[in-house]
Amino acid sequence: MKTIALIMAGGKGERFYPASRNLLPKQFLSLGADNETMIQKTVNRIRDLVYPQDIFVLTNKNYLSLVKEQLKDVPTENIVLEPLSKNTAPAIELGVEIAKRKYDDAKVIVLPSDHIIKDEVEFRRILKMATQFVENKESILTIGIKPTEPNDGYGYIKISDSQEISKVAEFKEKPTIEVAKQYVESGNYLWNAGMFIFTIKSIDNAFKKYMSNQHKLLTESLDNFPKVESISIDYGIMEKADNVYCIKGDFAWDDVGSWNALKRINGEDENQNTILNDKTVLVNSTNVTIKGTNKKLITGVGLKDIVIVETDDVILVANKNELSDIKKLTAKIKEKQLDEYL
Amino acid sequence: MKTIALIMAGGKGERFYPASRNLLPKQFLSLGADNETMIQKTVNRIRDLVYPQDIFVLTNKNYLSLVKEQLKDVPTENIVLEPLSKNTAPAIELGVEIAKRKYDDAKVIVLPSDHIIKDEVEFRRILKMATQFVENKESILTIGIKPTEPNDGYGYIKISDSQEISKVAEFKEKPTIEVAKQYVESGNYLWNAGMFIFTIKSIDNAFKKYMSNQHKLLTESLDNFPKVESISIDYGIMEKADNVYCIKGDFAWDDVGSWNALKRINGEDENQNTILNDKTVLVNSTNVTIKGTNKKLITGVGLKDIVIVETDDVILVANKNELSDIKKLTAKIKEKQLDEYL
Repeated sequence: MKTIALIMAGGKGERFYPASRNLLPKQFLSLGADNETMIQKTVNRIRDLVYPQDIFVLTNKNYLSLVKEQLKDVPTENIVLEPLSKNTAPAIELGVEIAKRKYDDAKVIVLPSDHIIKDEVEFRRILKMATQFVENKESILTIGIKPTEPNDGYGYIKISDSQEISKVAEFKEKPTIEVAKQYVESGNYLWNAGMFIFTIKSIDNAFKKYMSNQHKLLTESLDNFPKVESISIDYGIMEKADNVYCIKGDFAWDDVGSWNALKRINGEDENQNTILNDKTVLVNSTNVTIKGTNKKLITGVGLKDIVIVETDDVILVANKNELSDIKKLTAKIKEKQLDEYL
Repeated sequence: MKTIALIMAGGKGERFYPASRNLLPKQFLSLGADNETMIQKTVNRIRDLVYPQDIFVLTNKNYLSLVKEQLKDVPTENIVLEPLSKNTAPAIELGVEIAKRKYDDAKVIVLPSDHIIKDEVEFRRILKMATQFVENKESILTIGIKPTEPNDGYGYIKISDSQEISKVAEFKEKPTIEVAKQYVESGNYLWNAGMFIFTIKSIDNAFKKYMSNQHKLLTESLDNFPKVESISIDYGIMEKADNVYCIKGDFAWDDVGSWNALKRINGEDENQNTILNDKTVLVNSTNVTIKGTNKKLITGVGLKDIVIVETDDVILVANKNELSDIKKLTAKIKEKQLDEYL
């Protein structure tokens, strides 16, 4: 059975403002020292497993030209445009319906387009094992990342035993930091990374059973997409189905959730600083992350826990501990009618 | 008797990096919302008291074109070029010698070119009183600023009585902050602002008496300038002469000693932020000072006590409490052979 991939590339990635913009979300950015963008890395990472003609990209119509430009070998007919942003359940079913035009059945790997994976060999080993599993057993498989720290920013998956692939006991929404600590100590909880593996047949059955309204509308006509409810695949299927399994992943995954990820991706110098700019001079500064345009000398004096991002038209200086407020910043920019900077 | 002015404009103003540069020191910058530079403000402030042809500017040869451009009505022959940087005593005698070519005697006002004075009417009243005093009495008069706070960054002048003009009891070098508090509480100490008033005759006598070597060399030939000792007028004359007086000044003086001065000069908004940039959006930020090129949107999130300065080729982000380390920054830039940014 063929293996195909659904690349989820409809997100806005606002937390990477000002590098990410309304018309240039995070997945189309390079956040490392090389020039490869996140979505390019996502596709290149699975080249050994999936042919380019079997990669389907789900994205927003505004990003069509970006996808075409960045993923030149993905056929244009495989770029699935969501007429408006829905959540993951409608998007995945839309992708599956498009894939069904080509294949009656196939093993499907669903991958976010804006994550970083450092150990790609291990990642591919897990994917291979996962696709074999779903081929042999009607099931929906999710990848659970072995936590490296208590983190209250992720959802957790409680597994029922310690095998490499185990039945999911329960999905848990983002916990408090205290609860996250208990999860990590127990060893029975993994991070939910939004990566799924199933066959067309098994997910089709699940949509029919657990999201019958959406399934009816979308099998009737894809033009019904705007009518379906906006709901996550986790909530719509995973938490309800009884054939959901989890495969343990331990391949240095990062969801690149904020500018703080730059340090994890690119490393740090002896003062815990991460510099992505040609010319930079810092004095008495620690835990500073800088991403510039390489056009200016960027300097810092007496800084601690600071991110500096320079683009061609915006400079951001932010406290690393308050990066969640970047949403407030973009809201305020809109409020001030400075939309050309969004 | 004529009143002339010696404007001291040879300083480097490194503490205003990256706005100040090797070839563009602080006195030639505008640090307020208007476009008038510090040296232009200095000259315009005394227009009612001194004719342009009686203004002499002491500067470094590298800054000749800047002075000509910014002070168009000061005659070129009044621009006195120091072939190399000496301290204030040689510079003042050099200026006085040039002035002597025009006037046998005159009342001389010596002013730094990089200070801000908010109450200009009061300032001119003080200067008028000062010039009258030195015309009537062979003396050297210094302006002492009424302290508004204990400040360990200034030298202090101890006065001998509470009159508006009193004999100087003692000059004090920069004190510790504790000693500065005692000075301010006592009411007998004023800030030394580097502003002096005397006649050509009286300062000539003082140079002859207290700095005879320099006086001999410079009256012999101004070409001897490089041979004289580098020494401040405070140390060479003021602390030694017995006819030194102090006039109290209370005209909202600011020596513009660091980027922190921008807030004092330009005021602050309700979050204690001072913004000198067309488009700026801050979220949850207090005591932030921003000076930009007006070309980019400058944004901040969760910042406290931060200065952001953007020029055409440099960005500086600095902790307001560590601005004295800007010297270390420029040293490090030099060390890294990035001299084009100095």
